[in-house]
Amino acid sequence: MQTLIRNGRVVTAVDDYHADILIEDGKVSMIGKEINVKADKRIDAKGRLVIPGGIDPHTHMELPFGGTSASDDFETGTRAAAHGGTTTIIDFAVQYKGQSLNQALDAWFKKAEGKTSIDYGFHLICTDLPDDRLPEMKDMIRQGVSSFKLFMAYPGVFLVDDATIYKAMQTASDGGGLICMHAENGVVIDAMVRRAVAEGKTAPKYHALTRPTKAEAEGVHRAIALAEMANAPVYIVHLSCSDALDEVVRARDAGLPTYAETCPQYLFLDYSVYEKPGFEGAKWVMTPPIREKWNQDELWRGLKFNDLQVVSTDH
Amino acid sequence: MQTLIRNGRVVTAVDDYHADILIEDGKVSMIGKEINVKADKRIDAKGRLVIPGGIDPHTHMELPFGGTSASDDFETGTRAAAHGGTTTIIDFAVQYKGQSLNQALDAWFKKAEGKTSIDYGFHLICTDLPDDRLPEMKDMIRQGVSSFKLFMAYPGVFLVDDATIYKAMQTASDGGGLICMHAENGVVIDAMVRRAVAEGKTAPKYHALTRPTKAEAEGVHRAIALAEMANAPVYIVHLSCSDALDEVVRARDAGLPTYAETCPQYLFLDYSVYEKPGFEGAKWVMTPPIREKWNQDELWRGLKFNDLQVVSTDH
Amino acid sequence: MQTLIRNGRVVTAVDDYHADILIEDGKVSMIGKEINVKADKRIDAKGRLVIPGGIDPHTHMELPFGGTSASDDFETGTRAAAHGGTTTIIDFAVQYKGQSLNQALDAWFKKAEGKTSIDYGFHLICTDLPDDRLPEMKDMIRQGVSSFKLFMAYPGVFLVDDATIYKAMQTASDGGGLICMHAENGVVIDAMVRRAVAEGKTAPKYHALTRPTKAEAEGVHRAIALAEMANAPVYIVHLSCSDALDEVVRARDAGLPTYAETCPQYLFLDYSVYEKPGFEGAKWVMTPPIREKWNQDELWRGLKFNDLQVVSTDH
Amino acid sequence: MQTLIRNGRVVTAVDDYHADILIEDGKVSMIGKEINVKADKRIDAKGRLVIPGGIDPHTHMELPFGGTSASDDFETGTRAAAHGGTTTIIDFAVQYKGQSLNQALDAWFKKAEGKTSIDYGFHLICTDLPDDRLPEMKDMIRQGVSSFKLFMAYPGVFLVDDATIYKAMQTASDGGGLICMHAENGVVIDAMVRRAVAEGKTAPKYHALTRPTKAEAEGVHRAIALAEMANAPVYIVHLSCSDALDEVVRARDAGLPTYAETCPQYLFLDYSVYEKPGFEGAKWVMTPPIREKWNQDELWRGLKFNDLQVVSTDH
Repeated sequence: MQTLIRNGRVVTAVDDYHADILIEDGKVSMIGKEINVKADKRIDAKGRLVIPGGIDPHTHMELPFGGTSASDDFETGTRAAAHGGTTTIIDFAVQYKGQSLNQALDAWFKKAEGKTSIDYGFHLICTDLPDDRLPEMKDMIRQGVSSFKLFMAYPGVFLVDDATIYKAMQTASDGGGLICMHAENGVVIDAMVRRAVAEGKTAPKYHALTRPTKAEAEGVHRAIALAEMANAPVYIVHLSCSDALDEVVRARDAGLPTYAETCPQYLFLDYSVYEKPGFEGAKWVMTPPIREKWNQDELWRGLKFNDLQVVSTDH
Repeated sequence: MQTLIRNGRVVTAVDDYHADILIEDGKVSMIGKEINVKADKRIDAKGRLVIPGGIDPHTHMELPFGGTSASDDFETGTRAAAHGGTTTIIDFAVQYKGQSLNQALDAWFKKAEGKTSIDYGFHLICTDLPDDRLPEMKDMIRQGVSSFKLFMAYPGVFLVDDATIYKAMQTASDGGGLICMHAENGVVIDAMVRRAVAEGKTAPKYHALTRPTKAEAEGVHRAIALAEMANAPVYIVHLSCSDALDEVVRARDAGLPTYAETCPQYLFLDYSVYEKPGFEGAKWVMTPPIREKWNQDELWRGLKFNDLQVVSTDH
Repeated sequence: MQTLIRNGRVVTAVDDYHADILIEDGKVSMIGKEINVKADKRIDAKGRLVIPGGIDPHTHMELPFGGTSASDDFETGTRAAAHGGTTTIIDFAVQYKGQSLNQALDAWFKKAEGKTSIDYGFHLICTDLPDDRLPEMKDMIRQGVSSFKLFMAYPGVFLVDDATIYKAMQTASDGGGLICMHAENGVVIDAMVRRAVAEGKTAPKYHALTRPTKAEAEGVHRAIALAEMANAPVYIVHLSCSDALDEVVRARDAGLPTYAETCPQYLFLDYSVYEKPGFEGAKWVMTPPIREKWNQDELWRGLKFNDLQVVSTDH
Repeated sequence: MQTLIRNGRVVTAVDDYHADILIEDGKVSMIGKEINVKADKRIDAKGRLVIPGGIDPHTHMELPFGGTSASDDFETGTRAAAHGGTTTIIDFAVQYKGQSLNQALDAWFKKAEGKTSIDYGFHLICTDLPDDRLPEMKDMIRQGVSSFKLFMAYPGVFLVDDATIYKAMQTASDGGGLICMHAENGVVIDAMVRRAVAEGKTAPKYHALTRPTKAEAEGVHRAIALAEMANAPVYIVHLSCSDALDEVVRARDAGLPTYAETCPQYLFLDYSVYEKPGFEGAKWVMTPPIREKWNQDELWRGLKFNDLQVVSTDH
């Protein structure tokens, strides 16, 4: 099966030119000024951009959370992704207490199987990592799942303590893997939330006001410090604000293997969404929350100067 | 009762001059070029320095710890202090699990009573601060005990979690009090210690090698972040190294009410003490441990530039 | 001659207490709870503060500048100072091109002689320091004039080049002296001024708009870098803004012997004075100019945290 | 004319794969898994890397300097470049005092014409930029020479003052051009050199000892400050040391359009070359000089984290 895309403007990470592209059995096999092949399928891309498929390394299809579940399953979610030009997602499989890492991965493969329109892979969220389970991480890496997400937030649900993070970083790094960190001080946030609830402050905006940027920045700093002690790299997920970015910048200026992603919601939206009348603000309840507008400029600077390496959706 | 000190060289925090000093009923009542009074007691201080009595804000008389107890009691310790020119100590009373703050303070007053040769006061080490005990802090402040020490180290013994620290900071600050922080990531240190022990690494030097400077710096950063979120000041006890000092400097440069003390052992000793043959190095087992020599210069710089405010002994 | 000040509240750099003070021949000879002496003069200071006389280390009495002259001479200026509690000034003698340093000092002593109501000393502004004149600096230091002011601003008038500054720093430091630096990039400011004038922008506010904070910060950074290369201390005069303070903070954090003063005008006034209607804004034309209001907080932070050491008036 | 390169391993800035490459009339016209064309010339690249030609943006062919001249002319230099895989150089044309920019460019085009084996372009070194010559910069940019090098070093030869730099930055930036800066405080270096010579310190190592890293860092900081005031980008040439890199990092962390290159000599050699016996060290006399070894790690970190953007040779 051959497909020929003609006359398009090809834009890649480093180039921008007009060319024809031949695809054979799903893979680009030739790029040239003019390709004369009788392909099975011919597409005229005149006046259009031809770009590589996007990779979204942070999605949560069918994730059960907080008594409900992500609205997209692997079928609807990947179809939507394809329509936007995203051809690969890396979703998060969740290991629940008492499960082996393999059980978690199997469960998620089962969810995805046969439903996806695009490529997919998994990170593994670990919530239960006693010392005798750590070796399973290396087994996962050998199976191709090399990134593990740990939470400093959500005490009682996802949160693992600093010792677990430290040991997981060492183990993953030893095996060539990477820890992805949800970096917010969830214990302090929890105390803030309890007080807010006790004071009757339950409007949507209190979701943001009980998760200050300093709680995220503290988590980022701690994640980097633990990684430095473990002699391991670390990847900060969904970084939302200037305070947190400062910690990443400081680490990278010191030569530490620190990486971070931000998301469109932090680049384009601002705190004012929570001030909308009534319960409207609840539409934007996410974690970390949307921040004050001035943070956007700092995040854009971070992307421009390679202090942030990735934009994902946290779908 | 009058005492006259004649001909001494008076050196205070800001002055240096020759003068006579008259003391009436234990208080300086007059300083002058030449005081002509028939005092009950006359001391000729010619050729000597006359300086105010020292205050040591970090002592642990009769502290039970690790299955043994501090070698000095309030009698020997304060007598030794007096010989060195220290006329006031602030010792640490310890609240154990289940005790009220008042019980803790009473216990320590009982230890000290009748034994001391010099003035003394107390900070209160809190190990058990559920929400319904927090109001006791304000009561303590009204009684004159306005500083409370919390531990990020020693899990299972002294360690309290970040939420407790955060709430204690708010409560103390509200009442005009201050949190003193033992700032080391004790949970990670514990993991390092367990591994070292498992590997048979039990020589004295492993005490230092399992408590890296980054674990202290992380604690200092977190303490400052919690204080900032609580809108409270914070005082770091026994800061030992450049990495930790960097965090204090950064906070003070940002205008945060952050204070720190260091101790003579960190200013004058270095890690090589742990390399002494046999078990000799055990004499210097303390927490935080003695650091690499180059840290000393940084601590002296900190004192000179007011980034460190206090030298105490941690006796 | 004896003067007794009774019942005042004595406030010094470190103390605050009620006491009597006896002054003999112009010097405090005794401080005490109750001094019973028949003094020639008795002052009842009940309800009043008794404080040491202020020292203003930055005044310009009778300074000829820009075709006019400072409005105060040593008589009116020092009388005014005395009324405000300032009992010592350090004024600036100016060495003009071709003069020896001694000639400059003599000229200023002549201006001051017999006119002053308070103590005074001199710094020396140097505008002409070829290599063969450098030794005169050490001679000045021996005479008690140990601080020399150099200008990075005012090309053609006061400005000296970086090599002169570097060599003067070495020479002064060798002799135990200190360079005081007017730190603004005067050459770039001059280019900005010329353009503004060419464009008809001559309203008072353009004085401020052609002297941006970055031009001052650059000067401060350069002064510190020259001092570091010369292995000498440096004292920045009339620091006006956060950008410039950042450079001082950075230097002090690195342990460099860097000192700086700010002035009341920068602590209390802000740029809006230049926006007053008509020519009114001209009243506040000074160098560096008054800055945007937010700088004030940073300067206060600097004073509080010992990043700024002195408040002078630049009278 | 067609050339076919077969079976090579193609490595570009972002990709690494095996493919054939077809070149028609000197341009890549097709890249594919297997290209079946009867080309005029066929090259078998099996087992070899196929990479894009290198660009060296900092060369000095036939440059007259210090009474002698660069040993390579455009013929030998570009032939050597081609042998190393460099297919484009950007050399520096020099405008001498009194010349127009066009005269300078013409002179260098004449030197290069007919001699080069590879592509070439020019930056323009400006040594004489009075206000009425500034408009020529925009003319140059329209002709395709959009980068201008200015010197803070070499007083009396290349050095231009800060006002000139500031105005040139504004003018170049206005026209879409860029200032390349040789950033060292040449005036202070000159004073150090004169003293060293006066003291008979003329061994090769004194070349390095009279050009300290702080003199370079000061120049870099000043260049960035001038660019910020001019609202223009700046490109630092041949950055050699950690102190100077710190200034670039600080600027980029603040979002300023600051760029810098380093060179292989700073990445691979260290100061010890100057300590070789006799006059041997003179082989490594270059500006800035080779630095202490530890600087190398910092430069590599800079490249890795995108704080340095370019490696050139300064041939």
